[in-house]
Amino acid sequence: MIIVMNLQATDADVRSVTARIEELGLRAHVSKGVERTIIGVIGDERLIKREQLSLLPQVENVIPVLKPYKLASREFKGGDSVVDVAGVKVGGARIAVMAGPCSVESEEQLMSTARAVRAAGATLLRGGAYKPRTSPYAFQGLGEDGLKLLAKAREATGLGIVTEVMESAEVELVADYADLLQVGARNMQNTKLLRKLSQVNKPVLLKRNFSATLNELLMSAEYLLSGGNERVILCERGIRTFVEYSRNTLDLNVVPAAKLLSHLPMIVDPSHGTGRQDLIIPMSRAAIAAGADGLIVEVHPNPSEAFSDGDQSLTPAAFDQLMREVRSIASALGREGPGTP
Amino acid sequence: MIIVMNLQATDADVRSVTARIEELGLRAHVSKGVERTIIGVIGDERLIKREQLSLLPQVENVIPVLKPYKLASREFKGGDSVVDVAGVKVGGARIAVMAGPCSVESEEQLMSTARAVRAAGATLLRGGAYKPRTSPYAFQGLGEDGLKLLAKAREATGLGIVTEVMESAEVELVADYADLLQVGARNMQNTKLLRKLSQVNKPVLLKRNFSATLNELLMSAEYLLSGGNERVILCERGIRTFVEYSRNTLDLNVVPAAKLLSHLPMIVDPSHGTGRQDLIIPMSRAAIAAGADGLIVEVHPNPSEAFSDGDQSLTPAAFDQLMREVRSIASALGREGPGTP
Amino acid sequence: MIIVMNLQATDADVRSVTARIEELGLRAHVSKGVERTIIGVIGDERLIKREQLSLLPQVENVIPVLKPYKLASREFKGGDSVVDVAGVKVGGARIAVMAGPCSVESEEQLMSTARAVRAAGATLLRGGAYKPRTSPYAFQGLGEDGLKLLAKAREATGLGIVTEVMESAEVELVADYADLLQVGARNMQNTKLLRKLSQVNKPVLLKRNFSATLNELLMSAEYLLSGGNERVILCERGIRTFVEYSRNTLDLNVVPAAKLLSHLPMIVDPSHGTGRQDLIIPMSRAAIAAGADGLIVEVHPNPSEAFSDGDQSLTPAAFDQLMREVRSIASALGREGPGTP
Amino acid sequence: MIIVMNLQATDADVRSVTARIEELGLRAHVSKGVERTIIGVIGDERLIKREQLSLLPQVENVIPVLKPYKLASREFKGGDSVVDVAGVKVGGARIAVMAGPCSVESEEQLMSTARAVRAAGATLLRGGAYKPRTSPYAFQGLGEDGLKLLAKAREATGLGIVTEVMESAEVELVADYADLLQVGARNMQNTKLLRKLSQVNKPVLLKRNFSATLNELLMSAEYLLSGGNERVILCERGIRTFVEYSRNTLDLNVVPAAKLLSHLPMIVDPSHGTGRQDLIIPMSRAAIAAGADGLIVEVHPNPSEAFSDGDQSLTPAAFDQLMREVRSIASALGREGPGTP
Repeated sequence: MIIVMNLQATDADVRSVTARIEELGLRAHVSKGVERTIIGVIGDERLIKREQLSLLPQVENVIPVLKPYKLASREFKGGDSVVDVAGVKVGGARIAVMAGPCSVESEEQLMSTARAVRAAGATLLRGGAYKPRTSPYAFQGLGEDGLKLLAKAREATGLGIVTEVMESAEVELVADYADLLQVGARNMQNTKLLRKLSQVNKPVLLKRNFSATLNELLMSAEYLLSGGNERVILCERGIRTFVEYSRNTLDLNVVPAAKLLSHLPMIVDPSHGTGRQDLIIPMSRAAIAAGADGLIVEVHPNPSEAFSDGDQSLTPAAFDQLMREVRSIASALGREGPGTP
Repeated sequence: MIIVMNLQATDADVRSVTARIEELGLRAHVSKGVERTIIGVIGDERLIKREQLSLLPQVENVIPVLKPYKLASREFKGGDSVVDVAGVKVGGARIAVMAGPCSVESEEQLMSTARAVRAAGATLLRGGAYKPRTSPYAFQGLGEDGLKLLAKAREATGLGIVTEVMESAEVELVADYADLLQVGARNMQNTKLLRKLSQVNKPVLLKRNFSATLNELLMSAEYLLSGGNERVILCERGIRTFVEYSRNTLDLNVVPAAKLLSHLPMIVDPSHGTGRQDLIIPMSRAAIAAGADGLIVEVHPNPSEAFSDGDQSLTPAAFDQLMREVRSIASALGREGPGTP
Repeated sequence: MIIVMNLQATDADVRSVTARIEELGLRAHVSKGVERTIIGVIGDERLIKREQLSLLPQVENVIPVLKPYKLASREFKGGDSVVDVAGVKVGGARIAVMAGPCSVESEEQLMSTARAVRAAGATLLRGGAYKPRTSPYAFQGLGEDGLKLLAKAREATGLGIVTEVMESAEVELVADYADLLQVGARNMQNTKLLRKLSQVNKPVLLKRNFSATLNELLMSAEYLLSGGNERVILCERGIRTFVEYSRNTLDLNVVPAAKLLSHLPMIVDPSHGTGRQDLIIPMSRAAIAAGADGLIVEVHPNPSEAFSDGDQSLTPAAFDQLMREVRSIASALGREGPGTP
Repeated sequence: MIIVMNLQATDADVRSVTARIEELGLRAHVSKGVERTIIGVIGDERLIKREQLSLLPQVENVIPVLKPYKLASREFKGGDSVVDVAGVKVGGARIAVMAGPCSVESEEQLMSTARAVRAAGATLLRGGAYKPRTSPYAFQGLGEDGLKLLAKAREATGLGIVTEVMESAEVELVADYADLLQVGARNMQNTKLLRKLSQVNKPVLLKRNFSATLNELLMSAEYLLSGGNERVILCERGIRTFVEYSRNTLDLNVVPAAKLLSHLPMIVDPSHGTGRQDLIIPMSRAAIAAGADGLIVEVHPNPSEAFSDGDQSLTPAAFDQLMREVRSIASALGREGPGTP
């Protein structure tokens, strides 16, 4: 932590800052410049709060030097983490593709989708049983019945199951059925849910909130890691900006940026990220080219009849096209395309 | 709902859209323009999903005509709603000011703050017992012990209590202590929490998420109203933008905009909205001038020692100054200043 | 400037940074922490470029300490600047209100508007002769004929003239007619235009670009000040965000934030800032309450027939109402309301 | 254009809207729904202004149906435009890569960069002679001397020249030297510059402003096209959002979105788009994978000594690596990699 004093600061002001730093159990190092005096804090700055120094007289600015996360950082672990989800490796050389309907609607809808995505090479089946909807009048998911259908689809196809859990009270129930527990974008900072998930023996797919910084995403991962769950997969799914031609702005820059700071694998959701069927395939190619470890894609046998998210769901035929294009990009990068090993 | 066909649309394409509309139980009204054919949907468009029409061949755009919320709208209720919180009216002629520490830290801290804000004219006491923090290593609140201290402060000062509830499982416990249940910005779309709160006999303070549109805020209010809880107070607390000089961008435009669309009262949180002590007073004046029904402000006896949010907390003396300036603005508007009636 | 070395930095890496700093004519001050070494630069950091240090091996971050502007800063000039525009003081105790049509359309339109805004108490007349329009097919302004009409209106009403200048080649012509030269939001970083305006003996109204930081706004002011023109008035006119209920998001936080950093006066444009007739009056009240030194407002005798910006223009009657409300807020703040002294 | 009447609208209100539409030379088509009456405008809606209808009594909303641009649209021209720049085709099967220093600094710097980028396969040389800088104290470019050095580099290497022109008065001079005239992001809506460029016999590279919508970008292209210059290349270079890990947010979604609406070629600038050396290569791969027709990249023989933009410039060696990776992605897509034909 570095404290910048303002132009008016006297020696007494500087001393009162250094005294406060020492009171807090750390050491201070003063550097007098021509226009400003700066004070470096020697010791673990994470032990103190900004405000303990920023509100002292004549302090102009307090600048943290260390990242606030530890376990999620590359400094803590240099190599790339690979997360095993029901035998599928996420974060290794092979691209992982999770696909399926936004909502589980019926046995027939789920089974036909599961078979189609498996045939195209998807390695995990996604499907929502609990749905956080903007409108109270919209379909809110089948609940546990949806989870049971997902388990049936796993039996039938061998695909591991990815599904969302919405609050801490439901974690155990959902974990009984799912292979990968999804934290939705709206819940990225639901700290009670994160705490509970940190104690569960299942991997977690942590979706970035649509207005979260990378720092905040990694701090939410830190909740999971620091509670004991090391199997965390990050997911970019679009941020909110001024742009009008996509529902969200899929931010691929975060993929290489996260890889520089963290060892955790990261996948991309081009369905929510763009909100438009006709942008999903080009942005899936771009995501893999940017370095993503996989994709999570919405597929529905008949998008215009979907209970939710039809506008951003691919037909099985379009998904098959996506998989072929993604394999081609993966191979250009020297990675293995999606599919069973 | 209006369907715009693209330039290539044939008569057969138009007929397939009108047929689909009729299949969905509504009527279609076709209007052929020079460059485009548009089709109006006659009936309650809320019964159908955009995707049921947008994905049909040659459909260029589907434009909703009705707002998705009903009970929160001015059309449903023309007059302004006034919400009673422990005898304090929010939404009437008198400005309501809720003040207190970000976190409840100790009996002494809470009592001294409660007495100070009451003396300055605050009408409700705010204080957090459950805290959603970005970092897992930060103070997470005193929990039920905090609630007990808040109840003690109410006994001592007569001020009603505003406190946050973080998940549905905690609603009953928090409702036992609080007079106004706060939904934090991160939970604005926690639909399980909203559902539970819609069934509780306590008013709710619904904070706007920092990237929520007004539509989304009113849809979250609709969850509460449609579940049976009519006592909803909206709160603006800053949005996330590119600007660098405030932690968030307090968006006062939403105040008159919400008043045009909804009958619900709206207050403003200048502490979170700006994140800077030195902007709180001018932005509080501006909030009242823009038409807000009240404020919620963080006050701490010693901000530099606060367990959380010190940078955006006022000292009791500064809060007293704020109250004097707010009274002056209220009076210029012909409203009553904050204080006991 | 502070250089933060990363965890891997060796003593040799630190030495290569300090050597580079000395080569650049400044001095280095090394402070070894537990996890990081930081190096303070002693001397005027504005003389070096970030990249000269940031790209050296094992440098993690380079943090500037000084603001990049000098003449625009409060440190350079402690008191508030007051800019005289044709006898009207902007930045003093009295609120200044500039009003008039978006575009000058005809003599009749301009004269009737000028008389109406003068009667309501406006102190300067605004009107566009050169219009930067999004569409090449839209009305682009009357050009010099518009300037002549503005001059006529000045003669008839005594109101000083505010009008936009769009490029450096037009500065002299426009300066022959106008009392205050407006730099539009899209031209805030047109450095050729700023350079030219810095050498003209007329005050400048510098509008903030809709995605400019405060730093960038003050740097554009610095172009004017450093070239020799000290008469600069800042203007907030809305930023671009995700919100959907206003054309732009009028950002009033920038008003008190700019006042803390700079001595320059600042006014607010609620017409462009909101883009909605029905938000202009409440946001004008809020702007003055936040500390703005004045307003610039679009007024048209018949907004639905305006050649441009009708949706955000007030009728003369509505403008009269605005002036009464603004006077009331000004008086609550202890400032003088708009009007001739 | 569709006019939505509000709930209170009477038959007389509807008639006054239809009368106004007919007065404006168009026809009206009324459709009475259950909750709203909507009125379709038959005829070319581009001939009227929104405000002529939006401000009539009881009008709730006016929704345009047609895009405001014509010549830039796919409807006007179905096939992809290919722009020839000094013999290099931009928009065809072959990827075009423009590379060179941010600023032209000296003959030696320019020549060595030109040779290096040519050797790596770049097909055009970029370099700034006129620089729009945020700070008045920063290097503003060599001006015409810079243009002369660019011409020399063209002679020496055969590479066509891309350089920025900052205002209309400079267009002729710059056009004498350059093969492709660049409109910088800050000038995307400098309509005087666009008008002048529309009459010049040189192609134009139009960079998207960092807060421009796609609509606005295409309207700026329409200025060029409607004035007679058909050789327009669009360029994405990052938008301004809340994210903190890149200087701008490179928005690749705009690439496939623009391709759906317009026939114009589009390239991507990963240097300005990210502002970080270490993100340029992955985001270049992603840009090509998303469907971009080329790249414009900053390269400097010694980035830490660059007069401008060193933080986002590649060394020649890194640029060579970029070209190899881009070729591999291009080939995976069935396109030809950059390089001389």
